[in-house]
Amino acid sequence: MRLSTRNQLPGKVVSVTTGEAMAVVKVELDGGQTITSAITRDAAEDLGLAEGSVVTVLVKATEVGLAVE
Amino acid sequence: MRLSTRNQLPGKVVSVTTGEAMAVVKVELDGGQTITSAITRDAAEDLGLAEGSVVTVLVKATEVGLAVE
Amino acid sequence: MRLSTRNQLPGKVVSVTTGEAMAVVKVELDGGQTITSAITRDAAEDLGLAEGSVVTVLVKATEVGLAVE
Amino acid sequence: MRLSTRNQLPGKVVSVTTGEAMAVVKVELDGGQTITSAITRDAAEDLGLAEGSVVTVLVKATEVGLAVE
Amino acid sequence: MRLSTRNQLPGKVVSVTTGEAMAVVKVELDGGQTITSAITRDAAEDLGLAEGSVVTVLVKATEVGLAVE
Amino acid sequence: MRLSTRNQLPGKVVSVTTGEAMAVVKVELDGGQTITSAITRDAAEDLGLAEGSVVTVLVKATEVGLAVE
Repeated sequence: MRLSTRNQLPGKVVSVTTGEAMAVVKVELDGGQTITSAITRDAAEDLGLAEGSVVTVLVKATEVGLAVE
Repeated sequence: MRLSTRNQLPGKVVSVTTGEAMAVVKVELDGGQTITSAITRDAAEDLGLAEGSVVTVLVKATEVGLAVE
Repeated sequence: MRLSTRNQLPGKVVSVTTGEAMAVVKVELDGGQTITSAITRDAAEDLGLAEGSVVTVLVKATEVGLAVE
Repeated sequence: MRLSTRNQLPGKVVSVTTGEAMAVVKVELDGGQTITSAITRDAAEDLGLAEGSVVTVLVKATEVGLAVE
Repeated sequence: MRLSTRNQLPGKVVSVTTGEAMAVVKVELDGGQTITSAITRDAAEDLGLAEGSVVTVLVKATEVGLAVE
Repeated sequence: MRLSTRNQLPGKVVSVTTGEAMAVVKVELDGGQTITSAITRDAAEDLGLAEGSVVTVLVKATEVGLAVE
């Protein structure tokens, strides 16, 4: 499967915090940066996400802002 | 200024493609990955974005999906 | 590849309108509804999207609003 | 009221999962597909959403990605 | 029609910039602030947006970030 | 720091509702309107948000829809 999603970054899950409706997943990218993802609890459970899971982070280009000093 | 935006990744602009309404900006992260951002043309011009601009990529956690093999 | 993206709907491309930076793609779902997607021009070209392309529409749950009468 | 929101799909609520801050609502579209929506708990309560509620699913075109095999 | 969309702010269109695929619309809120919206060209045309159009700005709560000094 | 984010509106926090994973923050804008923001619990805690906090509301232009009567 190929996605229109421009930003696909490999990483590994470092934590999963689960609420009733939502879950927050922290991922360490292969480049060393940490990414936070907020997805539904269902999604986290369906993918079986846990510390150490190998994942690809997905971000649509229209969701990416930029800042300059 | 501190942002609620969880994902803030330093990088450098590698290209800017400008349309009438929107612009697409490619950024090479310090970790080596390439990120694509779609912002308004006005935003790209106001920030003076061009090849070589030092930027921070911003992504709200609710915009980040995950994939597993 | 399995995605956290909760909403994955099969369909077929009915039109692609391409600008300098962005493209707008209309998709007829198997259920008969029409969906509009705005993605980068690069994404549309990389996926080779054209009238008749078989696609899956992807929408993150946090992007879905609801209305009632 | 007419909306710029390109994607407006009629359906019926099949479940509401409520957390402290957020709620996850599943909707069966008239075309038979199931859609998941993550909205604030306040929004779910204000609209009085419950199993069987008749709703329209709303998705902005810029939030729609595409995948091909 | 009532929307789950938490943020609905009345205003008036001050400019519309139209590209091939997308349009950027600037709106002056009744509170005096200016808001920029990027929607598809189709959406802008279907709503007949032009300088002076009376509109309601719509923003889903999950799309709203916050900053502090 | 200057942001590509087109919409930056000053206000003051009126309430913070915290769940396990997410938080919902209500902000009264200087123009008098109320804005709701859904961010991660981590973000709300990192920024120290509480009733009375002075904040800037941030919304990317691609997240802004419009409605007309």
